[in-house]
Amino acid sequence: MQDSIIDQLVEAFRVLPGVGPKTAQRMVLHLLERNREGGKRLGETILEAMSKVGQCRRCRNLTESEICDICSNTQRDQSLLCVVESPADVLAIEQSASYRGCYFVLMGNLSPIDGIGPDDLGIDQLPLRCSTDVKEVILALGGSVEAEATAHYISETLKPGSTPVTRIARGIPIGGELEFVDGKTLTLALSGRKPL
Amino acid sequence: MQDSIIDQLVEAFRVLPGVGPKTAQRMVLHLLERNREGGKRLGETILEAMSKVGQCRRCRNLTESEICDICSNTQRDQSLLCVVESPADVLAIEQSASYRGCYFVLMGNLSPIDGIGPDDLGIDQLPLRCSTDVKEVILALGGSVEAEATAHYISETLKPGSTPVTRIARGIPIGGELEFVDGKTLTLALSGRKPL
Repeated sequence: MQDSIIDQLVEAFRVLPGVGPKTAQRMVLHLLERNREGGKRLGETILEAMSKVGQCRRCRNLTESEICDICSNTQRDQSLLCVVESPADVLAIEQSASYRGCYFVLMGNLSPIDGIGPDDLGIDQLPLRCSTDVKEVILALGGSVEAEATAHYISETLKPGSTPVTRIARGIPIGGELEFVDGKTLTLALSGRKPL
Repeated sequence: MQDSIIDQLVEAFRVLPGVGPKTAQRMVLHLLERNREGGKRLGETILEAMSKVGQCRRCRNLTESEICDICSNTQRDQSLLCVVESPADVLAIEQSASYRGCYFVLMGNLSPIDGIGPDDLGIDQLPLRCSTDVKEVILALGGSVEAEATAHYISETLKPGSTPVTRIARGIPIGGELEFVDGKTLTLALSGRKPL
């Protein structure tokens, strides 16, 4: 027997991160029993987004335009370029409201095992981009081994162009208890100490 | 400025139960970055389900047919009618594989405060249904005050027709520690004791 539409929908919901069979079932029944209007809007918006959202030609971030809102915003400092791993990182930095420059989104990290090389991350575009108006490249990558390797590769790639490359500070987070911070972070925090 | 499609999609995902802004953002970025195919299928299946799924004319459960698969299954015992609150309850009982009769889905409980009366739950259809081939009505409702009231109302409604009405046993769950069971459940478990 063919699966019912309800079963198919439960299955379809499982593509979402963190959604198992029980949660998927709860979502499906919630929409069908209580919010068909919201469900219809969700379905339509998903289809619209899947077909219309692409990548910004300049910063590679997700956008429905050719050039994203941040890149086309003339109020932003075009001489600062912050390199991040993913669109979620851009959103996090934007929410902190502490940065007014532009971004470059790698959409991943170097990972030879998965066959992800510099060209897949657009790193080959960086030297050209820096030869124009960029005065500082800020690396805001994560703490994984792959991110370390990616950061190193980018700084090597940009060396001939002599654009200064910096990386965001590593240390203990605000509100963090010293005793629960891992040894590597403590080492970095100590060696990166500043005069008060 | 109008919200971008990405923002609209994050907002649309928040109709789902248990999905806040952070989770919605994670879902949206996951689909856009990693699984557009799955996202497209999800959007299409949602739209199909929202428009095609209705209620079974016989048991009121959610189905895309006029009569649901359980009601139209001649292998099932038509003389047993299990009354439940929601489609999720039907799925739970079916998964236990301990019941081969039919269902009647109230889609809620009596709740005068919310303006939900017997007719909204289809209770008015029950006497007619029981006058035909039903030999036992099993009430499998929850433990809330509203469910108690609903169970009481149904048994009163069915009294003139003299169809026996039973309710599923209440007591300590399998694997439950006695010391953590609440007083009311313990009282019910004690008064419902059976000879070994």
